Amino acid sequence: MIATTTVRVRYKDTDCMGVVYYGNYLTYFEVGRVEYLRQAGMTIAEVNDKVFIPVAEASVKYHRPARLDELLEVRCWVSERKRASFRFEYAIGSEAGERVATGFTLHAVLDRATSRMMAIPPWMAELLPVVSGGAAERV
Amino acid sequence: MIATTTVRVRYKDTDCMGVVYYGNYLTYFEVGRVEYLRQAGMTIAEVNDKVFIPVAEASVKYHRPARLDELLEVRCWVSERKRASFRFEYAIGSEAGERVATGFTLHAVLDRATSRMMAIPPWMAELLPVVSGGAAERV
Amino acid sequence: MIATTTVRVRYKDTDCMGVVYYGNYLTYFEVGRVEYLRQAGMTIAEVNDKVFIPVAEASVKYHRPARLDELLEVRCWVSERKRASFRFEYAIGSEAGERVATGFTLHAVLDRATSRMMAIPPWMAELLPVVSGGAAERV
Amino acid sequence: MIATTTVRVRYKDTDCMGVVYYGNYLTYFEVGRVEYLRQAGMTIAEVNDKVFIPVAEASVKYHRPARLDELLEVRCWVSERKRASFRFEYAIGSEAGERVATGFTLHAVLDRATSRMMAIPPWMAELLPVVSGGAAERV
Repeated sequence: MIATTTVRVRYKDTDCMGVVYYGNYLTYFEVGRVEYLRQAGMTIAEVNDKVFIPVAEASVKYHRPARLDELLEVRCWVSERKRASFRFEYAIGSEAGERVATGFTLHAVLDRATSRMMAIPPWMAELLPVVSGGAAERV
Repeated sequence: MIATTTVRVRYKDTDCMGVVYYGNYLTYFEVGRVEYLRQAGMTIAEVNDKVFIPVAEASVKYHRPARLDELLEVRCWVSERKRASFRFEYAIGSEAGERVATGFTLHAVLDRATSRMMAIPPWMAELLPVVSGGAAERV
Repeated sequence: MIATTTVRVRYKDTDCMGVVYYGNYLTYFEVGRVEYLRQAGMTIAEVNDKVFIPVAEASVKYHRPARLDELLEVRCWVSERKRASFRFEYAIGSEAGERVATGFTLHAVLDRATSRMMAIPPWMAELLPVVSGGAAERV
Repeated sequence: MIATTTVRVRYKDTDCMGVVYYGNYLTYFEVGRVEYLRQAGMTIAEVNDKVFIPVAEASVKYHRPARLDELLEVRCWVSERKRASFRFEYAIGSEAGERVATGFTLHAVLDRATSRMMAIPPWMAELLPVVSGGAAERV
């Protein structure tokens, strides 16, 4: 499963170099993974009611700058799932299909009550099927 | 009492028009009033432990754009105090003393437990002496 | 003409009080007016190619807090048009139709070349028909 | 050379999980490297007058969440310098010395006129002495 959503670049997202501020791609990644979960069948609120999935690590590669009012496509999928953590992968492209930014976020799975790491429960593993090799290339 | 603090303009604060994004002056106002409270003797965490003071209304006038890496001076004072609400006034100036932005935020005072409006308690009124007329002109 | 668009509340938009940060409603207003212009027939880039319309004043009233993942409706219309300035009015509502925030932005019209105020050109006046009294009440 | 600066966590930086939003550490990194350059002898405006140094890649590891009003220490140094690119490394710590976040940004060096990659000029290499192994451990 690869979820696709779109984001429109706002003035707020850009900076005085004329393009999207480098940190704001992590906001676009956030939009991508929240929509991934919704398309997989759960809202982020429903997930948060059961477990917390904080970001343990994030990484972005910048391919070409995005500009005001561009309509970007954010693709998000799961590239790895371990006992108590998993990885979302992202590819952001332009309307013309150019690669704008790629990256990943690594998430820990925490028990809501204790804030301790816990094994990914079965209902959650189902939401997070691993998309194997080559996905990145297809983007 | 008029509290003064400084903020340095970050790339993050600017937009593709080359100047600070209009919404981000409300962030500078936030810095101004949190420092006001600290200078008056209480951290924002200490205030929040007792009451909530959400913003009910905010207003900004833009006098001249601020640019990347400028060191701005934010002045904050209380211009009005009613039974269950009060108003912070702000004046943001450049290092050279030019007026950059002015505005205000109107705050309700809410009971932490019930989230209902409550009369400003005496300890809080002491933090919030009203600076009377002319303060704005002096800025 | 009243333009309607929707924005989904992101983690990025919220703060540690659990609701949307007060300054971020100005971002939602921005989305509202850029979509207004698009629906009126011009992208923001097309407008910026001809004139600049910086914000001279902004104001927000907060009616009820918005929360993570809410789908908000942003309505935007022109409430006033003078020789060299005009006013966008905004009303943000929840999916259930509750009033979340209202406000306005006052825009100056500047000549691109000289950065001086200029009379609103006829092509622009056509984009900005004034919606007279009662619009706010209808929201 | 390791540059140290401090940033105070703002409401604006936090999200509804009660801690600093994951993308905003890239803003703190920005503050760290702009102060690095200032401490090395050049403002960011002076650098931008000569070359552009866009971020080609960014990475963050999250060690423990930062909270509203915390005073964070941002340390920044150069960990690698190649012909036409270099790497800033960052370590963000709490007042008590706990590790909050670490990461890096990889920068390309571009000719201002042509926007093409260029060899790091001598004046710039001088600003960017490589701090060799062990710096990360000392943080």
